[in-house]
Amino acid sequence: MVSKSQTKLITSLQQKKYREQTGLFVAEGPKVIAELLNEGFVLQSLFSTDPPENVAKNHFQVTDAELKKISFLKTANTSVALFEIPKPKPLQDSGLIIALDAVRDPGNLGTIIRLCDWFGVQQLLCSEDTADCFNPKVVQATMGSLARVQVHYLSLSEFLSKTKLPIYGGFMDGKNVYSEKFPKDGVVILGNEANGVSEAIIQKITHRITIPRFGKTQKTESLNVATAAAILLSEFRRSIEK
Amino acid sequence: MVSKSQTKLITSLQQKKYREQTGLFVAEGPKVIAELLNEGFVLQSLFSTDPPENVAKNHFQVTDAELKKISFLKTANTSVALFEIPKPKPLQDSGLIIALDAVRDPGNLGTIIRLCDWFGVQQLLCSEDTADCFNPKVVQATMGSLARVQVHYLSLSEFLSKTKLPIYGGFMDGKNVYSEKFPKDGVVILGNEANGVSEAIIQKITHRITIPRFGKTQKTESLNVATAAAILLSEFRRSIEK
Repeated sequence: MVSKSQTKLITSLQQKKYREQTGLFVAEGPKVIAELLNEGFVLQSLFSTDPPENVAKNHFQVTDAELKKISFLKTANTSVALFEIPKPKPLQDSGLIIALDAVRDPGNLGTIIRLCDWFGVQQLLCSEDTADCFNPKVVQATMGSLARVQVHYLSLSEFLSKTKLPIYGGFMDGKNVYSEKFPKDGVVILGNEANGVSEAIIQKITHRITIPRFGKTQKTESLNVATAAAILLSEFRRSIEK
Repeated sequence: MVSKSQTKLITSLQQKKYREQTGLFVAEGPKVIAELLNEGFVLQSLFSTDPPENVAKNHFQVTDAELKKISFLKTANTSVALFEIPKPKPLQDSGLIIALDAVRDPGNLGTIIRLCDWFGVQQLLCSEDTADCFNPKVVQATMGSLARVQVHYLSLSEFLSKTKLPIYGGFMDGKNVYSEKFPKDGVVILGNEANGVSEAIIQKITHRITIPRFGKTQKTESLNVATAAAILLSEFRRSIEK
């Protein structure tokens, strides 16, 4: 059974404003929920079509119709959970770090979080105008990887002014990524889907790199930000393996 | 001015059935339309909020409201065009070829077409149950790359039984892609978002490869199909550069 006020709360969490007010976010499906629980995320309440395994006051058994009402997915799963948004851990100025400058598409952000997890990148920095990682679309697109990657929202230009790490960014005229020897620690900047990296951030970049293009016509404008992230992360990790 | 029958025709082209019946597909926005025209795609009609540059009987000036009605995008662009679906060119059993086994998400297919264009892959093979490349969502996601990549729908297992090319596929226990020397010509198989490559197709794979995972927890299940495509294409092209 889902009460009216619970339905209202869950529906409201589609909006960032209400996630900030309540400190809660929504995750759906047993896989994503289990991964968040495994990593110590605090469950506020769980709505599931399965009977609760343990009798707990924050577990509610619901009908398929009730679940459909509170689900954000086109095809509702078997469970919807509310979790507390965790306090961010202190930022470490070390390791391989990805920094996103105004990446707006939730699907792209989700894919990049999943890539960070695959390639062992523990810190993802986001400009304040990047999509919110607790947006339900992002949470689902991460497939649970959100549990293992720390996402920090901050002023990128402030961080980049202070960091001692080398700062990498993609340019048409940069050094070929296939012949570069990349360090273990560094910051990789990725920019907005339409406009790329902003002028203020470009000025902080210390290492200009490029993914060579092989198409004959040379007309392809750019790679999608998530596929560029995939290739760059792969190249950084290959450098360590060498 | 858009007539009722034109609106009905355009709206119907969201469905594959009507694209097949009419032999037409929709492209939106001056950039995508220009790239298709450049590559010799045949324009059936153009609806634009700008006055037509050349007086042609298949160019129609429309109001913003009319455009919004026929556009498939959330934010309508300035133009919507109908193009003829081209006859596929004969398939060549050479070059680097990507083969998709039941990739269902239009966004993933669009991203992969864009990647093929970037990395100079001219032939993309799709199983009959892969998303349709003339689906409006795919056309827009390709950002015009669809004009330069030949997409063939066919029985993958029949093609793979006949081809003389080496056939690559990703496995947990395959050879590390970073230490492989890849050939210039070959087929790379990518599978369905949820179920991976089907059993019948797995049996045709001659070279098992793996993208190493660097995450500590080893829990990340898999990479998204488009990001896996990005890393594999990058590795094949790097091999040629070496």
